[in-house]
Amino acid sequence: MDKILRINMSAADKPEIKVDVLGDYAGLGGRGLTSAIISKEVPPLCHPLGADNKLVIAPGLLSGTAAAMSGRISVGCKSPLTGGIKEANAGGQAAQVLARLGYAAIVLEGKPENDNLYKILINKDGVQITEDNALKMTGNYDTVDRMKSEYGDKVACISIGQAGEMKLGSASIAFTNMEFRPTRHAGRGGVGAVMGSKGVKVIVIDDSGMKMRSPKDPEKFKQANKLFVQGLMKHPVTGEGLPAYGTNVLTNVVNEAGGFPTKNFKSGRFDGAPKISGEALAEMEKERGANPTHGCHRGCVIRCSGIFHDKQGNYLTKQPEYETVWSHGANCGIDDLDAIAMLDRLDDDFGVDTIEMGATIGVAMDAGLADFGDAEAAINLVKEVGKGSPLGRILGSGAGVTGRVFGVERVPVVKNQSMPAYDPRAVQGMGVTYATSTMGADHTAGYSVTANLLGVGGTVDPLSPKGQIELSRNLQIATAAIDSTGMCLFIAFAILDQEETFNAMVEMINAFTGLSMTGDDVTELGKKVLKMEREFNRQAGFTEKDDRLPEYFLKESLPPHNVTFDVSDDELDSVFNF
Amino acid sequence: MDKILRINMSAADKPEIKVDVLGDYAGLGGRGLTSAIISKEVPPLCHPLGADNKLVIAPGLLSGTAAAMSGRISVGCKSPLTGGIKEANAGGQAAQVLARLGYAAIVLEGKPENDNLYKILINKDGVQITEDNALKMTGNYDTVDRMKSEYGDKVACISIGQAGEMKLGSASIAFTNMEFRPTRHAGRGGVGAVMGSKGVKVIVIDDSGMKMRSPKDPEKFKQANKLFVQGLMKHPVTGEGLPAYGTNVLTNVVNEAGGFPTKNFKSGRFDGAPKISGEALAEMEKERGANPTHGCHRGCVIRCSGIFHDKQGNYLTKQPEYETVWSHGANCGIDDLDAIAMLDRLDDDFGVDTIEMGATIGVAMDAGLADFGDAEAAINLVKEVGKGSPLGRILGSGAGVTGRVFGVERVPVVKNQSMPAYDPRAVQGMGVTYATSTMGADHTAGYSVTANLLGVGGTVDPLSPKGQIELSRNLQIATAAIDSTGMCLFIAFAILDQEETFNAMVEMINAFTGLSMTGDDVTELGKKVLKMEREFNRQAGFTEKDDRLPEYFLKESLPPHNVTFDVSDDELDSVFNF
Repeated sequence: MDKILRINMSAADKPEIKVDVLGDYAGLGGRGLTSAIISKEVPPLCHPLGADNKLVIAPGLLSGTAAAMSGRISVGCKSPLTGGIKEANAGGQAAQVLARLGYAAIVLEGKPENDNLYKILINKDGVQITEDNALKMTGNYDTVDRMKSEYGDKVACISIGQAGEMKLGSASIAFTNMEFRPTRHAGRGGVGAVMGSKGVKVIVIDDSGMKMRSPKDPEKFKQANKLFVQGLMKHPVTGEGLPAYGTNVLTNVVNEAGGFPTKNFKSGRFDGAPKISGEALAEMEKERGANPTHGCHRGCVIRCSGIFHDKQGNYLTKQPEYETVWSHGANCGIDDLDAIAMLDRLDDDFGVDTIEMGATIGVAMDAGLADFGDAEAAINLVKEVGKGSPLGRILGSGAGVTGRVFGVERVPVVKNQSMPAYDPRAVQGMGVTYATSTMGADHTAGYSVTANLLGVGGTVDPLSPKGQIELSRNLQIATAAIDSTGMCLFIAFAILDQEETFNAMVEMINAFTGLSMTGDDVTELGKKVLKMEREFNRQAGFTEKDDRLPEYFLKESLPPHNVTFDVSDDELDSVFNF
Repeated sequence: MDKILRINMSAADKPEIKVDVLGDYAGLGGRGLTSAIISKEVPPLCHPLGADNKLVIAPGLLSGTAAAMSGRISVGCKSPLTGGIKEANAGGQAAQVLARLGYAAIVLEGKPENDNLYKILINKDGVQITEDNALKMTGNYDTVDRMKSEYGDKVACISIGQAGEMKLGSASIAFTNMEFRPTRHAGRGGVGAVMGSKGVKVIVIDDSGMKMRSPKDPEKFKQANKLFVQGLMKHPVTGEGLPAYGTNVLTNVVNEAGGFPTKNFKSGRFDGAPKISGEALAEMEKERGANPTHGCHRGCVIRCSGIFHDKQGNYLTKQPEYETVWSHGANCGIDDLDAIAMLDRLDDDFGVDTIEMGATIGVAMDAGLADFGDAEAAINLVKEVGKGSPLGRILGSGAGVTGRVFGVERVPVVKNQSMPAYDPRAVQGMGVTYATSTMGADHTAGYSVTANLLGVGGTVDPLSPKGQIELSRNLQIATAAIDSTGMCLFIAFAILDQEETFNAMVEMINAFTGLSMTGDDVTELGKKVLKMEREFNRQAGFTEKDDRLPEYFLKESLPPHNVTFDVSDDELDSVFNF
């Protein structure tokens, strides 16, 4: 994994392929690598859909190895949604496959002059780029089916749906899972629009004939991995809650805590929560012969993903994630899991971020386009995105644009990106992360739910501003480091609570690379990544004024606790004091 | 003119009326007053459509007097289009009428809880506010007709069309002219959306029984005014070009100079220019029995406005301004004055900024929604705005949103506001103004066309970056001062070239107010206004990165001169060094 594949889509006759050495980027992976390339090579004031932006797809440092949980892949660019730097990451098969092919990153550069659509095949023999205009405006499901018929089902696909081709702000990039379904998405920030602007519909990667990456010290690596897995298995969140109910185990927890944003962030508790909870979902999946405990990529031991069958017992979509259940459920007043699953399926197929899409439908409901609770209307609105109608394009552009177009004041965005499933008034640590993250409102950037609600990594009162800055800061630093390893962020539950599991992770990196990193080095890596990202944003015109929640979170109190967001601006401005 | 009328639309039962003293704002008028009130009273990070924003409508210091050209009125708020401070100004009757009623400003505050629509009557007896939901979604023409039937034709109206009610980013505020037609607009920055968010459809002002404001030294005032008018009359621009052909006298001039942006800023010269020039327009108006030489308000001596009749000889709209002829003409590849006039009429009726609207249609044409040159398609697109269809709402939200929704990279905006009719590559002084103005891209903020193309106030090569900073800086300062007097900006031609005319203007202010201002004091006033505005924008999150043209103006060269915009970032950052 010591080379970078660069594909210049601007080249005159056809895209130009170049295989580059890692050079200055040696030692970086995942988010560390995507953010380094974007910081160094992309002009911060360029148009996100222009030739100067780049799309970087990078597996993590440990991807393609036998390390458990190492199958995350990072996608970086200047975001069309936020205008700042973006890293969105996903599970699925691609990280392992790409890493085994020896690529630390794929970089799509330039922009074609014509409007041809391309597919790219990467295998042990090299790279092939082919025009394939028959793929125009196909959904992700159709696209990967076509790729399967051409290349068999041992490959992995990275694709965009109609939304990416239309270059919409909520467009995602889909990654196939173990069953060759396009269900794992680099969802946030419109990364799919950047892929669309490069004219690339699908990247097919095939690691046939390639081996697993081997560690410097195989025995030490094997031992560390074993301890690491044991640690994950014994922690109640990663060993019990997530496997049994998936991420949707959180619905009851967050709703109970009064932080489950309901009807476009008007309440923190949703009457319909029990009907859409992880417990209800797992029960339904079992009844219908689906599978609630399933890994999204090879090497996953937590297995928080799952399969959702429709009423007839046929595959419909993956088990909707907690944030999707929230966005299309509580946030739209919808308490029907079948409707939520259908929305998830449509989102995956059209290639849009489920968080942005659900938040957008909530804003559209406030604008009077549909009633809260009307599942059929919500489905019809999302279908407009696939059609590419003017209404669909508005909605597919995200909550910020939808608010502008329909004159809605209450729009839950930071840096124009929608807030996810935790109300910042009732989970104030998340408010700090939403406000200050380099990514715009993003729960994964510093998941303060840990100490705020779950008692993981300590306890911090979720309703008080006290202690939230330090909590969010430390989590943002740790996350930036984990996102660079290719490890699934969910390992954080165990490594925050169990020192030996954290040590096993560091030991695994050292045994693999031959380095002798300490815990402090991991922290330093996280800080370095955040500083790069923040500097990019500064050069793109962001100031501390962009590190603020919309004013209504400071003024409107949220039932049932009747709280406002109380962390002061000065405190917010201290998050990056390190 | 020593009181401020404040109307709080948030008040529980019905809007609350309060008449305030000028207090700290004494001595300010027009833009100086609107920007002072916004700076002091509006939180820079508030939502532009929220209760914390205010809409300030202020006649100038000399409005309501016998001073020639003193009928401009300023509208200020935090802009829904740019997110920064906004002053948009207009001609028409309102400035004189409001000033005679003694109001230095109307301030609309708060936001109604319900969705009632209000009309406000202001006369010598006070203020009456009435719900009038029958006015919902009426155009400006229909609205003022209804007001005429209720209040007679001696009043003046300030109203919004459908776009303002829908709170769209390009919504304007209309002011009736001398014939009681809603043709003079505070067009830019979405000020109409702020009026719409306050639930106010129309303000009817009636100065029956009120007298002209009288000067401290009537004789000196009369003398100065006489000299001032003589100065205007003898200058070739204000005494000949503007009266004969209106502002559209510029089409041939700017086209000849290669700075007439054509087909969404792809060329600086339009083949169809002669067919839509001011000369052609005046000829057509004369043939059809219309009037090409007409004042937009009482006291105007330049009389650059005019009347446009359709082919049947019936009134259709005002004589389209140069910027409208450009935006709906060359910028969309349309060379048909009847079509341009129809678009002008629709814009005025729906209440949208003709500049933003034409620039938006240009972007929509690049997105493939219509072909360049297809006048009928352009008319149909603008009609969508009036209907409030999803497509209409997109277009009515301006070029920036339209570019986002349709994935278009070439969008000619600064601070999200469309550039007007002068390509910044071929008129580089305008590029400096577009980039750095506190208002977003705005030709009136510092009209460098003077020295760049017209040889007024000196000569600066339009194709070279040399001398443009100083030119734009001085004009921006002078403009901020003139915009505070209530004087029409077109007096600048004469006062830049003729020292005695400048002195007459200062003398007029002194004779009226009893002050003893000098030319330097005028400059200081301009600087003070700009500094306030820039500080508001800084607190709203603007940095020097917002003072940039879109990157394609630096990379794509513009025919026929094949020039790019060459003023460096460092130079741009020096504009406000004073």
